[in-house]
Amino acid sequence: MKPKERELRRFLEDIRDGRASIEEGLRFLEDLPSKDLGFAVLDSHRELRHDCPETLYCAGKTLDQVRDIARSMLERHANLLATRASPEAYEAVRSVCPEARYHPLARTVTVIREAMEKTATYVAIVTAGTSDLPVAEEAAVTADILGNRVEKVFDVGVAGIHRLVDRLPLLREARVIIAVAGMEGALPSVIGGLLGKPVIAVPTSVGYGASFGGVAALLAMLNSCAPGIAVVNIDNGYGAACVASLINHLS
Amino acid sequence: MKPKERELRRFLEDIRDGRASIEEGLRFLEDLPSKDLGFAVLDSHRELRHDCPETLYCAGKTLDQVRDIARSMLERHANLLATRASPEAYEAVRSVCPEARYHPLARTVTVIREAMEKTATYVAIVTAGTSDLPVAEEAAVTADILGNRVEKVFDVGVAGIHRLVDRLPLLREARVIIAVAGMEGALPSVIGGLLGKPVIAVPTSVGYGASFGGVAALLAMLNSCAPGIAVVNIDNGYGAACVASLINHLS
Amino acid sequence: MKPKERELRRFLEDIRDGRASIEEGLRFLEDLPSKDLGFAVLDSHRELRHDCPETLYCAGKTLDQVRDIARSMLERHANLLATRASPEAYEAVRSVCPEARYHPLARTVTVIREAMEKTATYVAIVTAGTSDLPVAEEAAVTADILGNRVEKVFDVGVAGIHRLVDRLPLLREARVIIAVAGMEGALPSVIGGLLGKPVIAVPTSVGYGASFGGVAALLAMLNSCAPGIAVVNIDNGYGAACVASLINHLS
Amino acid sequence: MKPKERELRRFLEDIRDGRASIEEGLRFLEDLPSKDLGFAVLDSHRELRHDCPETLYCAGKTLDQVRDIARSMLERHANLLATRASPEAYEAVRSVCPEARYHPLARTVTVIREAMEKTATYVAIVTAGTSDLPVAEEAAVTADILGNRVEKVFDVGVAGIHRLVDRLPLLREARVIIAVAGMEGALPSVIGGLLGKPVIAVPTSVGYGASFGGVAALLAMLNSCAPGIAVVNIDNGYGAACVASLINHLS
Amino acid sequence: MKPKERELRRFLEDIRDGRASIEEGLRFLEDLPSKDLGFAVLDSHRELRHDCPETLYCAGKTLDQVRDIARSMLERHANLLATRASPEAYEAVRSVCPEARYHPLARTVTVIREAMEKTATYVAIVTAGTSDLPVAEEAAVTADILGNRVEKVFDVGVAGIHRLVDRLPLLREARVIIAVAGMEGALPSVIGGLLGKPVIAVPTSVGYGASFGGVAALLAMLNSCAPGIAVVNIDNGYGAACVASLINHLS
Amino acid sequence: MKPKERELRRFLEDIRDGRASIEEGLRFLEDLPSKDLGFAVLDSHRELRHDCPETLYCAGKTLDQVRDIARSMLERHANLLATRASPEAYEAVRSVCPEARYHPLARTVTVIREAMEKTATYVAIVTAGTSDLPVAEEAAVTADILGNRVEKVFDVGVAGIHRLVDRLPLLREARVIIAVAGMEGALPSVIGGLLGKPVIAVPTSVGYGASFGGVAALLAMLNSCAPGIAVVNIDNGYGAACVASLINHLS
Amino acid sequence: MKPKERELRRFLEDIRDGRASIEEGLRFLEDLPSKDLGFAVLDSHRELRHDCPETLYCAGKTLDQVRDIARSMLERHANLLATRASPEAYEAVRSVCPEARYHPLARTVTVIREAMEKTATYVAIVTAGTSDLPVAEEAAVTADILGNRVEKVFDVGVAGIHRLVDRLPLLREARVIIAVAGMEGALPSVIGGLLGKPVIAVPTSVGYGASFGGVAALLAMLNSCAPGIAVVNIDNGYGAACVASLINHLS
Amino acid sequence: MKPKERELRRFLEDIRDGRASIEEGLRFLEDLPSKDLGFAVLDSHRELRHDCPETLYCAGKTLDQVRDIARSMLERHANLLATRASPEAYEAVRSVCPEARYHPLARTVTVIREAMEKTATYVAIVTAGTSDLPVAEEAAVTADILGNRVEKVFDVGVAGIHRLVDRLPLLREARVIIAVAGMEGALPSVIGGLLGKPVIAVPTSVGYGASFGGVAALLAMLNSCAPGIAVVNIDNGYGAACVASLINHLS
Repeated sequence: MKPKERELRRFLEDIRDGRASIEEGLRFLEDLPSKDLGFAVLDSHRELRHDCPETLYCAGKTLDQVRDIARSMLERHANLLATRASPEAYEAVRSVCPEARYHPLARTVTVIREAMEKTATYVAIVTAGTSDLPVAEEAAVTADILGNRVEKVFDVGVAGIHRLVDRLPLLREARVIIAVAGMEGALPSVIGGLLGKPVIAVPTSVGYGASFGGVAALLAMLNSCAPGIAVVNIDNGYGAACVASLINHLS
Repeated sequence: MKPKERELRRFLEDIRDGRASIEEGLRFLEDLPSKDLGFAVLDSHRELRHDCPETLYCAGKTLDQVRDIARSMLERHANLLATRASPEAYEAVRSVCPEARYHPLARTVTVIREAMEKTATYVAIVTAGTSDLPVAEEAAVTADILGNRVEKVFDVGVAGIHRLVDRLPLLREARVIIAVAGMEGALPSVIGGLLGKPVIAVPTSVGYGASFGGVAALLAMLNSCAPGIAVVNIDNGYGAACVASLINHLS
Repeated sequence: MKPKERELRRFLEDIRDGRASIEEGLRFLEDLPSKDLGFAVLDSHRELRHDCPETLYCAGKTLDQVRDIARSMLERHANLLATRASPEAYEAVRSVCPEARYHPLARTVTVIREAMEKTATYVAIVTAGTSDLPVAEEAAVTADILGNRVEKVFDVGVAGIHRLVDRLPLLREARVIIAVAGMEGALPSVIGGLLGKPVIAVPTSVGYGASFGGVAALLAMLNSCAPGIAVVNIDNGYGAACVASLINHLS
Repeated sequence: MKPKERELRRFLEDIRDGRASIEEGLRFLEDLPSKDLGFAVLDSHRELRHDCPETLYCAGKTLDQVRDIARSMLERHANLLATRASPEAYEAVRSVCPEARYHPLARTVTVIREAMEKTATYVAIVTAGTSDLPVAEEAAVTADILGNRVEKVFDVGVAGIHRLVDRLPLLREARVIIAVAGMEGALPSVIGGLLGKPVIAVPTSVGYGASFGGVAALLAMLNSCAPGIAVVNIDNGYGAACVASLINHLS
Repeated sequence: MKPKERELRRFLEDIRDGRASIEEGLRFLEDLPSKDLGFAVLDSHRELRHDCPETLYCAGKTLDQVRDIARSMLERHANLLATRASPEAYEAVRSVCPEARYHPLARTVTVIREAMEKTATYVAIVTAGTSDLPVAEEAAVTADILGNRVEKVFDVGVAGIHRLVDRLPLLREARVIIAVAGMEGALPSVIGGLLGKPVIAVPTSVGYGASFGGVAALLAMLNSCAPGIAVVNIDNGYGAACVASLINHLS
Repeated sequence: MKPKERELRRFLEDIRDGRASIEEGLRFLEDLPSKDLGFAVLDSHRELRHDCPETLYCAGKTLDQVRDIARSMLERHANLLATRASPEAYEAVRSVCPEARYHPLARTVTVIREAMEKTATYVAIVTAGTSDLPVAEEAAVTADILGNRVEKVFDVGVAGIHRLVDRLPLLREARVIIAVAGMEGALPSVIGGLLGKPVIAVPTSVGYGASFGGVAALLAMLNSCAPGIAVVNIDNGYGAACVASLINHLS
Repeated sequence: MKPKERELRRFLEDIRDGRASIEEGLRFLEDLPSKDLGFAVLDSHRELRHDCPETLYCAGKTLDQVRDIARSMLERHANLLATRASPEAYEAVRSVCPEARYHPLARTVTVIREAMEKTATYVAIVTAGTSDLPVAEEAAVTADILGNRVEKVFDVGVAGIHRLVDRLPLLREARVIIAVAGMEGALPSVIGGLLGKPVIAVPTSVGYGASFGGVAALLAMLNSCAPGIAVVNIDNGYGAACVASLINHLS
Repeated sequence: MKPKERELRRFLEDIRDGRASIEEGLRFLEDLPSKDLGFAVLDSHRELRHDCPETLYCAGKTLDQVRDIARSMLERHANLLATRASPEAYEAVRSVCPEARYHPLARTVTVIREAMEKTATYVAIVTAGTSDLPVAEEAAVTADILGNRVEKVFDVGVAGIHRLVDRLPLLREARVIIAVAGMEGALPSVIGGLLGKPVIAVPTSVGYGASFGGVAALLAMLNSCAPGIAVVNIDNGYGAACVASLINHLS
């Protein structure tokens, strides 16, 4: 018997047995917007995500806001992930939580007070070039804090496809692949053509001129002729890791 | 006492008086997803819209779909508004409802079996040019079936601003103004600068070349330097009339 | 007989009866550009806005321009609203008006020497996330100085829809709702689907990558499938408040 | 011992034992481009896809091309999926394979001569509106022929969010969700906020004006503030089903 | 003493001397919306354009609308120019005015019952390629009916610059030059660099792929590094001729 | 007899009289690319522009380049106009020419050592708002140094159209009008509708959000429904003045 | 001795020997604008292209224009290439030249009355998919008529990279490679990474949704991270072949 | 007999003669991924590029990354080219290689310890204006280090076409031309029309307003009506030089 059912049963018994009046019953029911059945429906899955870290997107927030939100999150959760965090934002988090750790390349802050158990299967994170590293590292840090084993395969862009081929065995064993690329964004297509794995493609804003801050790569990925590819926003390493983690945790 | 409250009170009395068992009570509450309090919260405003016509957007639907959806809507509602309706779509609606009427310029079908009471105040619909008429008429038909008095002021584009000035008295008495314009889309700015009324601006796809199917007018309206202007999608006479009707019905 | 007609009749009688000379008559007619029939038509509504504050858009103006325009406005008007104002712009205004007040989050300056009477009904301002606050606050400060009661409902984005549902009662009592959201801009659609109120949607430039500085949110709002939504420019909290105020003041 | 290893061992033994000359050995190795180790690396995963249907994208192909490619594919594969197929394209396929079946709403042709075993878990396909059905059906037909159990939840767009809430239990049990929406494209955000499942979002070209043929929905989905969402190309029901099938088949 | 003043003085004397009654005076003043001082200001320049033809833009109008608008225009004006006119639109005009003439390449209809006097100076119209002819001819027909001498220099695109050089003497004598070009739109830049004349540049939608319906040419013209170039909308031969005619008629 | 003709005659006489050999003659003709007849054709109009100032576009140039180019220009020309000039660029020009003058609002430097004679007719420069001043001033400084009388009509945007109407008499007497506006860019349309003068429209990058750095105004101007309007690049006050000057100087 | 030199020498000899007077000599030189040295400079390279076919772009031309231009071209040239030619356009050409040949897939017409000598080296034309064939064939027909040996490697898109690897030997021997691809346009990057040859990349409009008629492929190619790639317009097989032919003919 | 063949023959002989066991043979074959036949195919062309410098794109890399990558590259290669290098990046390279040289205008660093032999033929680099110099210099430095003779023709934009004509003889003798232009990007079209040479067009981000950071020039170049033009990315002088070098080195 689920707790919700028990509470409702007790309420009905109170009515039946006269411990509560009809008026009290009506007030109880009126009160349901905050604890009712309907919202049980709405809310229940959040428990699945209870052991997830809260996430704090720092860009566009003042240092005061970062500090206050971090403190408030850390009161309710053991773990915290702050993305797009400058060194100053890191200091703001650290001022309320000394065990916070900074990942400068990924520009993320992590607080891990209760590490999630790691999966047996792993998420592979592949990049085309050195400049894609910050996005890939954001994905890696995110996937790690979400409890995933992570394998990295960096700098295997399609202009030197032999480097990619050398790493295929590692990629073949991954459960899901995050492919990070800027410029022409061809890497996910080639991987998708070589491997029968779900590929989460992340365009990066690496490039100049007609790369339009990652739009060229984004369009290439959306138009991939290889099956099995889905795309997240430009530079969204965090988002890619969220999807990949959900996939990697599927039983 | 509202009907919902009466039903709940009766339910509680049944429990109290033993006419219903605890198990029946639980089943009643479990059943709430279709009629519960929570969804009373979600659903209640729809009663406000009970005397509204159902709306059927015909574009991209087969004639069979149009006919079936229309029939199903007309079982639950007295009135129907079908937009972007070709003459063939009209025939499809008429086959299930002979009193359907077609407005060829507006490309809409209306079924009015129980006309809404008209407002005392009116919605003014203003157009810049002759080619904006279809969109303006869609707005007019929509506003009418939603129970609004409508006044039309057509062909008063900014390239001949004296025509607009001649019609200011009528516009000044409107409760809300729908301003429809294509090409450079300047009409709402001029009206907004002359009158202290809410203006719902509707860009139309009238124009060619760098009008980009109405984008030029849309951008002009979004960037209006006159206060009091809000914008709906290109050619969306229906949407403009919905907002205007909500405003015109405010007590 | 309308006042204007009476004035003109008296003028003609003065000529006829010799109380005014031909030269005086010509001067009267020459004077018409400032008080004639045509321009009475053009000008009269501005009196409606007489108790409105003058508005000064500071972006792209030098501090000297800000100070001079503010001084000039404050000679003619009791109240002043300066938007997109840096702290330095605030100092420029304060140098000519010590009672100026700065709202740092909203980046606005207000001078209220003769507060407008507040409406009984209120404008609700809803935001999706913390990063939308500056725009929402600009709307709030604007609506306030324009004489509106304001209620704020912040941080109820669609990714956690239960938070929005909790606040529906407050929203349901609003006369008009300003919904502020960046990223995917879905909040106005959900509100428009739940409530039969006019919704003024404000896209914000919050986001990155393919949010294109708020364009993604703008397009989402323009394409909303919920009726009753009209849109203002990206980050235009001021403009949203102007429309909402006009609606809220409708008698 | 894998077959490849066995073949190589036999080859080496032939050399050792004189059954093959050095010259024959060199020719064997020269021949490797079509069956060698390197390309074993490249090719091996295709065996995973051996029981997959071949896919034929009909748009932009002549009927003769469709017929010839279909015939050639059906010589090598038991099953065939033809997408974007007009009724005429269907006839072209049927002329070489009488058991071909047409799905008019999905505009696909299927030949299933050796049905894949269905998964125990299912892919849920959700649509916002009736006009999204063709894309959803393309996804459904594709997922089915790829061996997935499929559940459909149609017409639950965010403008009437109570309909979606009613269907949450079904969605919660899915292994992966395909969310199909045009216009403002908010459906995946709301689902992603309510459920901890991977969501493959498919923007559709439903809409007009500033929907720009699905771009508005695409951008909304890429910018979703809910975690767990990845996106495929506009109207790409086929592509969404491919990713979802890979995820659903993960052991 | 200006004519307007004389008219007003006479009017006042008529009142003073009893030649006009007060009622007649009021009617005179009431009449001012069409000829009053205020609107004299607004309206007077239209007299300059009195001998101009009325213009009827046919695209997006029904044949009935074309016929009715043409009839109405021809009641007030001697001459008519109908642009973007299909052969059917021409028939519609001819049904109310048998002397209408059709210019198939220009897709225009002209009615010239009272030809304007031609200027001594001429407008030169230059095109880059054969495909630009329809736009150039629309400009030529428009300039002609507006009373301009016209000289045409066709097919002198920058890929064969010797052809252009051969025609420089004719261009040098023009008062103003209309330069029509699609594709890369370089012609106005080269002409502007060679000649010290005002150049009205008209981008055409000639081209394919990344010409984006004339946008490439439009942008090239707006970014011309040669001084003396101003641009009209894509394919807007009519608009170019209007500006050129105003310039050519300057005394 | 023109110098060129004299030189050629002498050359022919040298051949005829044996003072030059056939081989020398061929070399002379081969040499013509730098001084031949053909290029007389190409070059002659530049003499028309001899009394024009040289123009130096400073943006994207180093201070050294600015100084060197200015020095070189001032050796050949009496007058110089430097646009997009920072105060530092001004100092660079002044270091080689002490009489250089800086116009901070227009961000231009002028050197006028031999002022051009002013035209009797004038160019009117009209702006919508205060923020358009820098562009308008660039146009004014440019028109002035090019020898034009200039009249300025500032801050008459369409949101307060009475201010524009007050200034119509001045505009009506202009030979050509430069209309400068950002945001929705409607000013040229209204002016073009009121006056039969050539209007050079200059969009400015004033605005935010969906103004896209002046694109909204640019599109509005290109799509103007008023005749007689041609457009230059965003913020291109210099270019507008060049066209206007050419028009104003037409005899 | 080139013809031009011979003519000039004869002219000088006529002067020297008195067969022509000085006045006749001056007239000869004045006449040079149509045949002079300057234009020898401008024109001389066209002789290189003398044995090139004239090219006729049929799109947007009437059948009469096609026929007349073709006839006129064939009077001056032995060979003709007509691109974007419908079957009707082919008939128009054939009506003036019975030996015209139609290439339906390439949509081109060729007239080869005097075939150019073929190069020893060859141009390789590579396509990603079947749908790219029309563009590839246009390139092939163009390269052929321009006198190039051509080798075709079709259907080797990056989603099945083993097919490309199998064909590398043929590609390695090419002098220049034309790589044709739609969708994500990754093929040129992969080829450019594998081979040290100039690659002319041709994006095609194959694809749907966010391929934007070939823009996705175009951007990918412009942003290629592999060196040695240059790009032509979308679907411009003709243009690619022109560049490739110039490269292939370099001695 | 090629080395690879010799190695394989020896391997087979070892097996045949018992010098290697079957197990050793299998390990040898398993090892092929790093040195096998298949990858010989993939890798062999890289030897062609052995005497090429390694290239390091500095933008977006930290100074530490620049230094480390440069050191690592210089261990394997004699020469190095670093592009988009700030003076600080130069210092980073110099700290590991004192002979590094900085080209401030081109923003490149070169290390040439073993200069490539120069070609007899040359690459001509042409620019439209002074502001295009940085891109042209990047191309020049790149072409130089890649072993090309380079000739520069600067500041010959189409607004002063006589300057270009003066330099045609030099351009005519080039093997391939790099044409660099911003703003309207017309230079390659004019050159392509005058000369029968391959032209690599480089759009630059020079310009403002509707130049959109070089997009206007890019589109103009892609849409050139002159044959023989291919385009690289905006500001990509490096990429243009790579293509041009490949063409210039063709034997």
